[in-house]
Amino acid sequence: MLVLVVNCGSSSLKYTLFQGEIERGTGLMEKLGGPVSTFTRLVDGAGKDPLSLAVPNHEQAIRLMMDWLIRDGVIREAREINAVGHRVAHGGPEFTDAALVEARVRNNRIARELAPLHQANYEGIEACVKMMPATPQVAVFDTAFHQTMPPRAYTYALPYRFLTEHKIRKYGFHGTSHKYVAGRGAQLLGRPLRKLNLITLHLGNGSSLTAVRHGRSIDTSMGLTPLAGVVMGSRCGDIDPAIVPYIMERENLDAGQVERLMNQESGILGLSGISNDLREVIKQAKGYNPRARLALEVLAYSIQKYIGAYHAILGGTDALIFTAGIGEKSPKMRKIICAGLAGIGVQLDPAKNRKAVACEMFIHDKNSRIKVAVIPTREDYMIARETKRILKSRQCTKPAVGMYKKKLTNELTHGKLPANKGKPRNAIQI
Amino acid sequence: MLVLVVNCGSSSLKYTLFQGEIERGTGLMEKLGGPVSTFTRLVDGAGKDPLSLAVPNHEQAIRLMMDWLIRDGVIREAREINAVGHRVAHGGPEFTDAALVEARVRNNRIARELAPLHQANYEGIEACVKMMPATPQVAVFDTAFHQTMPPRAYTYALPYRFLTEHKIRKYGFHGTSHKYVAGRGAQLLGRPLRKLNLITLHLGNGSSLTAVRHGRSIDTSMGLTPLAGVVMGSRCGDIDPAIVPYIMERENLDAGQVERLMNQESGILGLSGISNDLREVIKQAKGYNPRARLALEVLAYSIQKYIGAYHAILGGTDALIFTAGIGEKSPKMRKIICAGLAGIGVQLDPAKNRKAVACEMFIHDKNSRIKVAVIPTREDYMIARETKRILKSRQCTKPAVGMYKKKLTNELTHGKLPANKGKPRNAIQI
Repeated sequence: MLVLVVNCGSSSLKYTLFQGEIERGTGLMEKLGGPVSTFTRLVDGAGKDPLSLAVPNHEQAIRLMMDWLIRDGVIREAREINAVGHRVAHGGPEFTDAALVEARVRNNRIARELAPLHQANYEGIEACVKMMPATPQVAVFDTAFHQTMPPRAYTYALPYRFLTEHKIRKYGFHGTSHKYVAGRGAQLLGRPLRKLNLITLHLGNGSSLTAVRHGRSIDTSMGLTPLAGVVMGSRCGDIDPAIVPYIMERENLDAGQVERLMNQESGILGLSGISNDLREVIKQAKGYNPRARLALEVLAYSIQKYIGAYHAILGGTDALIFTAGIGEKSPKMRKIICAGLAGIGVQLDPAKNRKAVACEMFIHDKNSRIKVAVIPTREDYMIARETKRILKSRQCTKPAVGMYKKKLTNELTHGKLPANKGKPRNAIQI
Repeated sequence: MLVLVVNCGSSSLKYTLFQGEIERGTGLMEKLGGPVSTFTRLVDGAGKDPLSLAVPNHEQAIRLMMDWLIRDGVIREAREINAVGHRVAHGGPEFTDAALVEARVRNNRIARELAPLHQANYEGIEACVKMMPATPQVAVFDTAFHQTMPPRAYTYALPYRFLTEHKIRKYGFHGTSHKYVAGRGAQLLGRPLRKLNLITLHLGNGSSLTAVRHGRSIDTSMGLTPLAGVVMGSRCGDIDPAIVPYIMERENLDAGQVERLMNQESGILGLSGISNDLREVIKQAKGYNPRARLALEVLAYSIQKYIGAYHAILGGTDALIFTAGIGEKSPKMRKIICAGLAGIGVQLDPAKNRKAVACEMFIHDKNSRIKVAVIPTREDYMIARETKRILKSRQCTKPAVGMYKKKLTNELTHGKLPANKGKPRNAIQI
C-alpha cells in the first residue's frame, strides 16, 4: 500500500511516499513563491541532483512532486497512490482525531481563522484533491491528540465569551509527534500505554511538552497558538501577558508587529543575540559568552518547571521521553535539563546520555525513580499510519487502482457523506 | 516605639500605628478623589463612628489621618511617631531590600515607569515627609524579597534589549507577605529558615506563589506586573501571549483596553460571570452552576501546576504555607488544591483543614510527606518590623521626639546622604 504524506508550510512542501514503513521517495521544496525555489529529493534513500526553479504556489509544487515521482520511476502514474495523508496544523475544537478530507475538513472555518498562517495546509489538500480526485485523502491534525485535555487544562481565565464565541482555548500542537513517542515509549518500556504516566518533550526549533496519562494527553505546553509554553528558538514562550501591551506602547508597535517580535525575534535568538540554532548557542556558551549561557539556562529552567508541573498533575511519572531535533541530538541540553530534576527523582546516566544521539535509547541511571528515554520522532510515518487507520475505520481498507466505486470516492472527496453518527470520541465540553 | 505604617492605593489609604506588636490605631479611607470618601477606623481595637466626607487626594488623606489620631487621643502630636513605614508596590531592579526614604527612593524613575498605577505610593511618601520632616521614613517594597531570584528565573526570553533598556523582567509582588509567612512558618516548624524549602501561597483577590529556598525567594509567580501567574479574582494569570494581539484585532481594542480586560474582567469573575469574590462563586458551585465549577477548577489547577513546578526546582519541599484571604479562610479551596497533589506527597487532614480559619495551624495528615500550614499574613506588622530593622541598620535606632540631629534628618528626608558604599546585598546581575 502506497501512502503519500504531504506537509505544506507557508512557503514549503515536504512529502514522503511510504510503502509500509519504507520511504520510497521523499522531497523538500523551499522558497515557494520566490524567484528561485529549491527542490531536493531522495529516491529509495539515494539523493538526486537538487533542482532550482521558480515554483509559484502549492498547487504547482504538488504537480512538480508528482512529475518527479514518475520521472524518477518511483511510480508510473498518480493513481497508484492508495491514499494521501496531510499534515494540518490546526483542527480547531471540532477535530478530536484525524479525519477523511470531506466538507467538514475543507470548510473548517474556525481552524482557518485560528491559524491563518497555516492556510498552506489547505492549499495542499485542494491541490491533491484536484490531481487525485479518486484517491482518499486524510487530514492529520497537530491538535487532535490534545483534544482529550479536560476543561480545566484547556480553558483560559478570560471572559467566558472568548471561549464560546472566539473559540479561544488551549489546543496544543505537535500532537502527532507526542502520540508517536508515547506509543513507542510504552513498547520500549514493555508496558501497556494505558498504565503509564509519561511526559513527552518535543524539543526542536518549536518545542512543546505533553503530560500523557494512560495514553491520553491531559495537558500540553503550547496554547491557542504555538507561541505559548517553554522557551524556543525564536519564540518567547510564556511571559507576563501584561508585557504585550507594555511593549506595544513603549516601542509603538501594532498587534501584528508585537506578534512577530514574540514569534520571530525572541527565544534563544533574542536572548543570546546569536542564533535560533541551539548548536551555535551551545558552542558560544562553551566559550563563556554570558548571553549564550543565560539563554541556555532560561531555556532549561522553563522546561524544568513544566516537567515539575506535569509530574504533579500526573500524580507521578513513569518516564520522560525526549524527541525532535534538540531532544534527540543534544546530550548537553538533556543534561542541563535533568540536572535540575534530582529532587523529583530524575537521574541520568552520563555515558548513556552522551551516546544517545538520534537513536532509541534509555539514558537514566539505574537508581533513577523516573526513567528517561530518547526516541527519534517519526511524524511523517505516523501521518501515514494515521491515514491508514482512518481509512480502515471508514471501511476504505485496501483501496487499489481502479477499485473505487464511483459513488464512494465522490463522497469521500466532495464531502457528501452523511454526518458522522453519534458524538465523536472524547467530545469537547464547551 | 511608635511606627506608623502607611499603604496608599490608587484611591485609598490604609494606616496602622504600631506600638511594638500592638495596633494602637488603624484606619481605612476609600474613594479618595470622589464626591464622598469613607473613613472607618479603630482605636485600641474599638471601632469608631465611620465618617463620610470629601477627601480630594492622598495629601489631604494623610492630614486627616493625623488629625484623627490626635483627636482620638492615640497621640498628642505628630512628632511622637518614631518612624513611618510605607508600602511601595514596585521597587524596580534597584531595591533589593527596604530602604530609607531619600533621593534614590523618591526619584526612582524606573519603578514609577514600571508601575504607573502605583503612583499613589509615592504621593503618600511625599505627604508624610511634608507633614513629618523630622521623622525617618522607610519604603518597604513588595518586590524587594524577590530580588534574590537568579537570572534564569527573572529573565524573559524576549530580545535582550528589553531587559537592559526597558528593565522588563520578572519582579514579583507580595514580597512582604511571602517573607513574613516563610519566617513564621520556620518558627512553627521549629527549624531554622536557612535549612527549609518552602512554597508560600498568598491567595487573595490578587494571588502569588513563591518558592523559598533557605529563606530566599528563588522564583515567584507574578512577573513584571501583578497580572502574571495563577488565576485571580479578576486577572487572567498566565495565558498564551499570542492571545493578546489576537483579542485586540478581533475586538478592536487598544493596548490599554486589552490590559484592563485582562486585569479587571478576567479570572474568576470572567469565567464564572458571577463575581471576583470567591465565596460567592463557591456558593454557586455548590448549586451546580457549571461556570462557577469551571472557574474553581481552573483556579485550583493553575495553582497545582505552580506548586509542582516549584517543588521540582526547589528539589523537594518541606512545607506549603497558605496565607491571605483565600489561603487563610477557604478550607474548600485548600482542599481542592491539595486533592490534586497526592502524587508529590501532599495529604491534608480534612478535620484540621476545616478548622483552620484565620488562625495559625498545621493541616496536613501525619503521613503527608510535605507539611501544610495556614498562617495569617501580617503585611502591616511586617512593614513596621522592616522599618525598624532598616533604621537600626542605618544607626537610627531609638529615635524619639527631639532627639534627631538636624543634619541627619535633613539627609534622611531630603536625599543628601552619600551613596551607599559597596554593592547592595544580593545585587541583581543584569
